[in-house]
Amino acid sequence: MIIPWLHAVTPECESILECVQIAVDIHPYVDAIHVRQKQWTARMMWDAVEQYREAGIPQHKLIVNDRVDVAAAANLRGVQLAYHSLPPHAVRAAFAQLLMGVSVHDEREARQAEQQGADYIIYGHVFPTACKPGREPKGEEALRRCRQAITIPIVAIGGITYDNIGKVISAGASGVAVMSGIWHDEHPALSARRYRESLMAAVQGTSMLRS
Amino acid sequence: MIIPWLHAVTPECESILECVQIAVDIHPYVDAIHVRQKQWTARMMWDAVEQYREAGIPQHKLIVNDRVDVAAAANLRGVQLAYHSLPPHAVRAAFAQLLMGVSVHDEREARQAEQQGADYIIYGHVFPTACKPGREPKGEEALRRCRQAITIPIVAIGGITYDNIGKVISAGASGVAVMSGIWHDEHPALSARRYRESLMAAVQGTSMLRS
Repeated sequence: MIIPWLHAVTPECESILECVQIAVDIHPYVDAIHVRQKQWTARMMWDAVEQYREAGIPQHKLIVNDRVDVAAAANLRGVQLAYHSLPPHAVRAAFAQLLMGVSVHDEREARQAEQQGADYIIYGHVFPTACKPGREPKGEEALRRCRQAITIPIVAIGGITYDNIGKVISAGASGVAVMSGIWHDEHPALSARRYRESLMAAVQGTSMLRS
Repeated sequence: MIIPWLHAVTPECESILECVQIAVDIHPYVDAIHVRQKQWTARMMWDAVEQYREAGIPQHKLIVNDRVDVAAAANLRGVQLAYHSLPPHAVRAAFAQLLMGVSVHDEREARQAEQQGADYIIYGHVFPTACKPGREPKGEEALRRCRQAITIPIVAIGGITYDNIGKVISAGASGVAVMSGIWHDEHPALSARRYRESLMAAVQGTSMLRS
């Protein structure tokens, strides 16, 4: 059985301390924590990463958003690139050691990311989410088409709940990325564990269907 | 005779095209062009660097502000770090190939930059400048003390004119960085050439005094 990925993405507005405290609680249940604060400077990200490490979060679970230099200098697992980031091919060529995720919103971008050497894509938002008010979600069928367009792993994002995880796994996602469902839950660790359990159940369900 | 450095620093508000056009005209007279737009994304910097290169600006004259990843991925000369950037020691360890400048405002910061492996510092602002309205300039004496505190080259910035270049060179600067004096001049290339000539004359003057 393939072990599905659970990525926890930090929300925009938290303090470093608050993020670190929650990360300490949830990290046993997740494969990656995305340090994503878009308004932060490189120094703030560096300081946050140091605090994550001091709190016992393994470096190999840390992925920073956009700042390839922070990921490389801090020897982290990887970087998550967006449309405003360095082109994936440039990052691939200069930073072979980093796991490189690319955030995409349609099949064309997904193909492009794969061609440029992405290790995986984050695709979304799949379901309605408060983070993207008024913007139409992609839905599972679009995720399924995206799955058919590329061969690298797809991490689904956007409105993922314990209950709809099965749908994205059935549609071909290799895992899910969750922000508010974990960070804004009253009990983040319990929520992360429940996401993990739902993911495992979904994968087992899919395996049984396939066997 | 030591050849002094002339760094041209791009202003904040220009379009990429405007910057590139001026850079084409001035680059024969300068040692480095700093791509400094603080509000730009990594992708905008990358695109700008590509345009600089296509316009014939040699990569070894390009230094980007803050974004170490852009400098490394584009194989540029170096990076200019500020207080909000990655710590110099972290950049030194992970990006040995890059020329690393650090912007400092006093002797303490200058020493720290040197200890962390900076190749040079930019120190300022030395004279009054429209870019820093209402903020007291450091003056030549502070520059002289900074020179005594460290051994790496000091590039003086802030209100440098053809006429006061002699003062900063006498105070121990190894070169100057100029923004509006070049970019906002009616004839940027003529201005850059005149800065270059003033610099050479100042160094020759200083050499004669010393010999």
